[in-house]
Amino acid sequence: MRKAKIPDVVVRRLPLYLRAVEDFDRREHVIVSSKELGDFTGLTSAQVRKDLTLFGEFGKQGIGYDVKFLRTQLRDILRLSTDVHIGLVGFGNLGQALVHYHVDARSRPRTRFSVSPDRLRIVAAFDVDPDKIGRVYAGVPIFHIDELAEKAQEYGLKIMVNAVPAEHAQEVVDHAVRAGIRAILNFAPVTLTVPDTVKLHSADLTLELQSLAYYAE
Amino acid sequence: MRKAKIPDVVVRRLPLYLRAVEDFDRREHVIVSSKELGDFTGLTSAQVRKDLTLFGEFGKQGIGYDVKFLRTQLRDILRLSTDVHIGLVGFGNLGQALVHYHVDARSRPRTRFSVSPDRLRIVAAFDVDPDKIGRVYAGVPIFHIDELAEKAQEYGLKIMVNAVPAEHAQEVVDHAVRAGIRAILNFAPVTLTVPDTVKLHSADLTLELQSLAYYAE
Repeated sequence: MRKAKIPDVVVRRLPLYLRAVEDFDRREHVIVSSKELGDFTGLTSAQVRKDLTLFGEFGKQGIGYDVKFLRTQLRDILRLSTDVHIGLVGFGNLGQALVHYHVDARSRPRTRFSVSPDRLRIVAAFDVDPDKIGRVYAGVPIFHIDELAEKAQEYGLKIMVNAVPAEHAQEVVDHAVRAGIRAILNFAPVTLTVPDTVKLHSADLTLELQSLAYYAE
Repeated sequence: MRKAKIPDVVVRRLPLYLRAVEDFDRREHVIVSSKELGDFTGLTSAQVRKDLTLFGEFGKQGIGYDVKFLRTQLRDILRLSTDVHIGLVGFGNLGQALVHYHVDARSRPRTRFSVSPDRLRIVAAFDVDPDKIGRVYAGVPIFHIDELAEKAQEYGLKIMVNAVPAEHAQEVVDHAVRAGIRAILNFAPVTLTVPDTVKLHSADLTLELQSLAYYAE
């Protein structure tokens, strides 16, 4: 029911607010204004206020938001107050980079701008290469893709990251959906189909670069 | 002037239309309707028509769009009818994966859903690791980051892909802006600042995963 009420575009901004409020928390601010949140995230203060009122009245008129309270609320809303286990399908160059990216982000010292380690964890990977299966890479065990459904249950996988080549992307996604996964981050440069009950985000680098070409001098 | 007129959100959809129309072209369709384009891209036919009329009247009422003409127009608008040279900063795991991703996408046989090879090419990479500098990886030479401005000119770099760790991301972007780069794709999980004249897209995987957590069961 909650899902039906919050527009996707707002859900996409919540992690930005969380990042901002965690930064203010690290700098020991007790209160943060919608203007400060807007400056940090690149949004207008009106947009910030509008988005955050969707979840109830966190802020006080003319005072601002209680930093720790807002942080807790945002983490709860995003379901990041408990561990979220992620499965990675496709352990080629991109898959390995994603594990590193993730591990690095978690272990990196907190600087002004760095993301805080959070509860998102890649806990299992899947591939078809016999040389990879059975190995453990940066703490992440690699299984055969045929074990996806079984391991999804065993490891409590909630999100699947799809890093296989384009031609296998749809079958992997179908496999994940059958395994009960309801949130998928796709890297393959293809348009994929999922049921309405499944949320699919695409990090399609080709599309990103193509739209950037428009702005290149 | 053209830039001021087309909203960013439409520019972001243009590569989707291009991908669709290239697929129809491969399947030797001569005419494509807004409904077919909508089905392929996951948009409504009304949205498709509205977006495409921004660039003039490509379609004919009740008939549809000429596939080859629309393909050419979209490529021209996105400036993909000539080579677009991309520089990659940060040649760690992610950087290497991006080169592979890119090379793979270009050399992969065209299937129903695969992206066609296009004019976007990573032609130079930059790092600070002496073990990497001077090497050539999958056809891409690696230079010291201090050579960025010089090589940007020499190689005609139009887009910069930023794959350095979060704590160095802002300085790299500042460096690229000074070198005259006007379009940047950032992978570092940080909020970066660029002048109004520079277009910055972020492929922030942490934010993607955090917003997906909201939808995870």
